[in-house]
Amino acid sequence: MKRPTIHDVAAAAGVSRGTVSRLLNGDRYVSTTARIAIERAIAETGYVVNRNARSLVTQRTGSVVMVLSEPHEKLFEDPNYSVMIRTAVRMLAERDMSLVMMVAGDDGDRDRVIRYVRGGHADGVFLLSTHAGDRMVDALVDTGIPAVAQGAVIGRENVIPYAAADDREGARQMTRYLVEQGRKKIATITGPMDTPGGIQRLEGFTDVLGRKAAKKLIEHGDWTQLSGESAMARLLQRVPDLDAVFVASDLMAAGALSTLRMAGRRVPQDVAVGGFDDSSVAATTHPPLTTVRQPLARVAEETVRLLLALIDGERPESPVILPTALVARESA
Amino acid sequence: MKRPTIHDVAAAAGVSRGTVSRLLNGDRYVSTTARIAIERAIAETGYVVNRNARSLVTQRTGSVVMVLSEPHEKLFEDPNYSVMIRTAVRMLAERDMSLVMMVAGDDGDRDRVIRYVRGGHADGVFLLSTHAGDRMVDALVDTGIPAVAQGAVIGRENVIPYAAADDREGARQMTRYLVEQGRKKIATITGPMDTPGGIQRLEGFTDVLGRKAAKKLIEHGDWTQLSGESAMARLLQRVPDLDAVFVASDLMAAGALSTLRMAGRRVPQDVAVGGFDDSSVAATTHPPLTTVRQPLARVAEETVRLLLALIDGERPESPVILPTALVARESA
Repeated sequence: MKRPTIHDVAAAAGVSRGTVSRLLNGDRYVSTTARIAIERAIAETGYVVNRNARSLVTQRTGSVVMVLSEPHEKLFEDPNYSVMIRTAVRMLAERDMSLVMMVAGDDGDRDRVIRYVRGGHADGVFLLSTHAGDRMVDALVDTGIPAVAQGAVIGRENVIPYAAADDREGARQMTRYLVEQGRKKIATITGPMDTPGGIQRLEGFTDVLGRKAAKKLIEHGDWTQLSGESAMARLLQRVPDLDAVFVASDLMAAGALSTLRMAGRRVPQDVAVGGFDDSSVAATTHPPLTTVRQPLARVAEETVRLLLALIDGERPESPVILPTALVARESA
Repeated sequence: MKRPTIHDVAAAAGVSRGTVSRLLNGDRYVSTTARIAIERAIAETGYVVNRNARSLVTQRTGSVVMVLSEPHEKLFEDPNYSVMIRTAVRMLAERDMSLVMMVAGDDGDRDRVIRYVRGGHADGVFLLSTHAGDRMVDALVDTGIPAVAQGAVIGRENVIPYAAADDREGARQMTRYLVEQGRKKIATITGPMDTPGGIQRLEGFTDVLGRKAAKKLIEHGDWTQLSGESAMARLLQRVPDLDAVFVASDLMAAGALSTLRMAGRRVPQDVAVGGFDDSSVAATTHPPLTTVRQPLARVAEETVRLLLALIDGERPESPVILPTALVARESA
């Protein structure tokens, strides 16, 4: 049997092809009568709405939702998000698609994100800073709407395709650099241990120093500048003779620099400080940060590319891991 | 005739009341067969979906879209947006509604916003920083989806309900204050003249100084820090003997302070600087800014309140204008 076309649907429904097309493209300003006739005609003719064999229920909306799993203050504090959003907006605009942003800072927010996606308001989901064990992820996967992540979703690496920087190798680069600079007691401030950046950057650090040596030189932060300040204070108290610290983000490193300044330690003479990100923060600290550049715009690009491929019904290779580079400034 | 109920619809469609309810609440995970049966039953029984007599076509989505009419970089540069978004998210969460954000920085973005709203993906629109003559506004009004603005939409004040600070009176407060401090030659840096803050704050300034006296003492900025820097440079060139400047936003005032510092003018000894907003920027400039506090969180609250009232089918009073207050710090 010949595959039914949009013309067959229009003929069966007794409406114009344009009206069918408008309905299929998500324009809800189609009269209820026409809508009912078209839906019936689709059912009768067996028309397949698009090449993914999607039903009307999941018709295209022309938008992708970016879900940030952090309190929304972080959206404004962390300059990395600005880069990611700009990149995603630009790439989606090339396909005439729009980016809508939602912040999932608490359980209520997460429920509303699930409802929004389940309600068919987005063609795809771009997850950002998703923490391990977040039940929202499984609920989103269950909707069948394509979802990708920037950075692995821990425990769901094989379910949610992702792009990321090579966090582990980047951390190795920085730790090796500090060793080469003759530093003897190198501590680290990590990100949250339920995030890939938190885990991988600590792995890279211990890869170089050895698990046993590294063990007592670790404090944890939550990516905020404030958490970098207090983690640095705890390190100074526990390990007063440290002469270097690898901080897993530039923003936390800016916090660590404040604490060191208050404690009268000179950077880099007394304590070398290495960051991670090469974000806009790195160039404005005193002294400017030696850091690890992660190609954030490229990672965002690859994440969007994965999502568009899924939306188009393809099965893209995942993960996409992009290389990092050491950027030597003055803090180490 | 008795008004048909949801039970009548369920009976006519041969499905459970729960299935009808799920469809009406925007859950698209209802089978196409059930959906067609329900839509037909609604047409047949004459059931009115909710008290606004909305049709299925405009069923509730549980979300409101905030549309920022600026290049998205401004979302991150201007701390005011963080306050507005936080307030809107909190108030909507109380009604179990979510906020989604879209940036309308160019014509393509604006077309996509129109399509998104027309596609029925939001129950209401919250406009932010909308410029005069933006054709997106009329297209949004045409969709019939409730829309409100924070700050007037110029030329559409009677079409789009809005809440705002009393910009004009706030500018009068600052200009009077500068006069009372004995300043003789007071200039101003305005916002864009297609925004209500740009226009109203200049009006307040000329209210106090008189139109003729004010005329040569005006330069325009675009709300960014950089534009404050260059407007201040132009003023210094044109009016080298100025001894005060009222800058229509704190961020632009921070820019003006840089220029004055570079030019070797002491603040406030040589030149008094007054800002507007009392944003987080005002406390961190050198010297800290004397400014006009606008109750931004309250304005955002009232804007959301207007929108919720419209969504509920009410006709709220508009505009809601909230008072400003002078905050004296060290710059004037």
